[in-house]
Amino acid sequence: MRLDFFDQGQSDKLENSAYTQDIQVDVIVSLLKHLKLHKVNVVGISYGGEVAAMFAVKYPFMVDRLVLFNSTSYTSPWLAEIGHQWNAIGKTRDGATYYKATIPVIYSPSYYESKLEWMKKREAFLLPVFSNPVFLDAMERLTNSAESYDVRNQLDKITAPTLLVAADEDYLTPIKNQRELHKQIKNSELVIIPGVGHASMYERPMMFVSLVLGFINTLDTEYKI
Amino acid sequence: MRLDFFDQGQSDKLENSAYTQDIQVDVIVSLLKHLKLHKVNVVGISYGGEVAAMFAVKYPFMVDRLVLFNSTSYTSPWLAEIGHQWNAIGKTRDGATYYKATIPVIYSPSYYESKLEWMKKREAFLLPVFSNPVFLDAMERLTNSAESYDVRNQLDKITAPTLLVAADEDYLTPIKNQRELHKQIKNSELVIIPGVGHASMYERPMMFVSLVLGFINTLDTEYKI
Amino acid sequence: MRLDFFDQGQSDKLENSAYTQDIQVDVIVSLLKHLKLHKVNVVGISYGGEVAAMFAVKYPFMVDRLVLFNSTSYTSPWLAEIGHQWNAIGKTRDGATYYKATIPVIYSPSYYESKLEWMKKREAFLLPVFSNPVFLDAMERLTNSAESYDVRNQLDKITAPTLLVAADEDYLTPIKNQRELHKQIKNSELVIIPGVGHASMYERPMMFVSLVLGFINTLDTEYKI
Amino acid sequence: MRLDFFDQGQSDKLENSAYTQDIQVDVIVSLLKHLKLHKVNVVGISYGGEVAAMFAVKYPFMVDRLVLFNSTSYTSPWLAEIGHQWNAIGKTRDGATYYKATIPVIYSPSYYESKLEWMKKREAFLLPVFSNPVFLDAMERLTNSAESYDVRNQLDKITAPTLLVAADEDYLTPIKNQRELHKQIKNSELVIIPGVGHASMYERPMMFVSLVLGFINTLDTEYKI
Repeated sequence: MRLDFFDQGQSDKLENSAYTQDIQVDVIVSLLKHLKLHKVNVVGISYGGEVAAMFAVKYPFMVDRLVLFNSTSYTSPWLAEIGHQWNAIGKTRDGATYYKATIPVIYSPSYYESKLEWMKKREAFLLPVFSNPVFLDAMERLTNSAESYDVRNQLDKITAPTLLVAADEDYLTPIKNQRELHKQIKNSELVIIPGVGHASMYERPMMFVSLVLGFINTLDTEYKI
Repeated sequence: MRLDFFDQGQSDKLENSAYTQDIQVDVIVSLLKHLKLHKVNVVGISYGGEVAAMFAVKYPFMVDRLVLFNSTSYTSPWLAEIGHQWNAIGKTRDGATYYKATIPVIYSPSYYESKLEWMKKREAFLLPVFSNPVFLDAMERLTNSAESYDVRNQLDKITAPTLLVAADEDYLTPIKNQRELHKQIKNSELVIIPGVGHASMYERPMMFVSLVLGFINTLDTEYKI
Repeated sequence: MRLDFFDQGQSDKLENSAYTQDIQVDVIVSLLKHLKLHKVNVVGISYGGEVAAMFAVKYPFMVDRLVLFNSTSYTSPWLAEIGHQWNAIGKTRDGATYYKATIPVIYSPSYYESKLEWMKKREAFLLPVFSNPVFLDAMERLTNSAESYDVRNQLDKITAPTLLVAADEDYLTPIKNQRELHKQIKNSELVIIPGVGHASMYERPMMFVSLVLGFINTLDTEYKI
Repeated sequence: MRLDFFDQGQSDKLENSAYTQDIQVDVIVSLLKHLKLHKVNVVGISYGGEVAAMFAVKYPFMVDRLVLFNSTSYTSPWLAEIGHQWNAIGKTRDGATYYKATIPVIYSPSYYESKLEWMKKREAFLLPVFSNPVFLDAMERLTNSAESYDVRNQLDKITAPTLLVAADEDYLTPIKNQRELHKQIKNSELVIIPGVGHASMYERPMMFVSLVLGFINTLDTEYKI
């Protein structure tokens, strides 16, 4: 089951209102209640990983396995500045610059270079979207909703076996962020995909599927003598 | 299905004969023929990874998915020297020293330290084995059988989707070895488990199972726009 | 001797003209001729490192020692896109956004966070500069002048002992760029400063001075048995 | 000024006596008193780095600059086992095996391979030394003297600007050890030499000299706005 959060994908837009990621956590809880699901596997990437971590911190008993790709335990002042930059560009309604500021940086330089033609097609496809004020305002609200994100002091509440996936050319949530998550989440595993950027799911789709399916379907094992 | 090679585990000993890893490849082929299996998933670790790579190079059409943990594309002069050292100690029949030379080095320092009590028990358990001339001679033949291993110029023959797993505190087959395999095997993925040594399977059993099951059960996917 | 290139620092602006980094190389040559210097130590950082590499490729006999911090052997399409983004923002004359797009990203997240107050002061200091059309146009010309930079096939011409300094949180010219320089420049050394970003000179000033002075004052030594 | 410790190089042997590294620290202090030197730059590598760290912890006011190559803040149980192995082999008086156990492992695999001929000459040169009971007994005492080494709780006493040099193929005192030193020594810098083993001084002699001379001759600088 894949979930679009408010202001993401095909979900409703939350026009004229500021919010934090708590509201996205509430969406998950409501949905699970509605579906009468008491315990689920949760997979989150980037912003979705932050919401997933908040959910796991607040409702640890509802999480069977947790998988976080390219995430962080808090929005650092540095990361917040990246967000401010995106928002400032968004306000100019200049979709081409918004694309240049937000998209190349999520790929590793080598992947970007190896897929230049695909990137150009993707740019053409995204340009009208990125020029749409409704989209840009939604992105601004999304970006702002993450600014206060900080679960550093609560990660010890997570009890589910957790897989953390880092990419060593991820410049938005660098490997150091995943190492900190690994240190704080007691029952966690960490793997690094080398030569890959923030959008590891796009750069290495087979690894993404393998890691998720492998981890949520594996019994928690200990090696015995 | 788990396979003990000659001179390993509970397999026959090949006393009084020198051999190379080709003989172990032949064992795999014979077994698969006997079982009427035409195409299989192959998982190899360390020495087993070398045999698996040789098998995949020689019989690429018989390999569905290939997973190599802590392996290398050739036995470097440096690695050969480690083997010579083990053999020289083995000849003294001093099991305690053989243990000290071969076992701590396969673990990361931090894992070794965190499991000291378990290590001591394991040492006590292995000491009689490591003092047994039959075992030591088998180990010497095994070690020697890998000395000529070199598939560097043949890795382009491997067609199966391949997962390479490296550990950044693996001192026998360091990360650089896996990077070279990754460069040469065209359809390969590489992940690194940080803070882990050569015996990654023992240090991170859940990751081991997750990676293997995840990779061999995932369809080979490409991301579409 | 420290040199401001055209369109940098207190040098002349090259208004109304496009140029490549060749012109900056010519500046160096003219200056050295004027000073009657036949062979010098050359230290370059980032853009300056690119000019230094071009100089060393074209006039290898004039270079005694070469030190390149946070450099690259070519402007990749990915890096070019970062430049396009900067230029697009520059054209809006919005100094605050230009600052947010160009400055935080050159520091490591942890340094940025540890120096927040200093950063705020620096932002206030730079804001009028970054809002000045003369400065922004100069920056655009500078950025454009690097777009065609590519010395990948000529690095074997460099004969001077060369020190390459990489930083593992450098997101503009990542460690991979320095590894490629290291592979191509025959007489080169590579060191990595961990936990540091593109502006390694600012983050680790003592290391910067140590590395430069140490390297240019050391005889080229070989270890003898 | 280069100092051979007891049981090292051309210094006296301490036959029939066990000791710890404290005795080597006392040697330094006595020598400096004798030479009427009140404050010095101290450079230590491996075992020498441990003695240097102990000296800096005990006599911080006597240290101007401290440079530690390939060192650690304590002898871990894992590292101690390596020492036990060396001692056990030493007792057999088999110089060839002692060489194989202690020498290849201090080099990176790639350096070892690139210098095979030199290594063979070095092996021939060292074989009589490594077969000499006087040498082997001295090595055993040296190795044992480091077993209780642990300055982890005292590193905050070091006040001198300190340079820590790590090598990412150092398997005896891995990079993790230098990171811990870096975290604990307040005024410290860390650089990593990639592709190099424990014997970084031999593998990269020019870098060794550059780093030492650069660091001890550089004023402690802060970058001002």
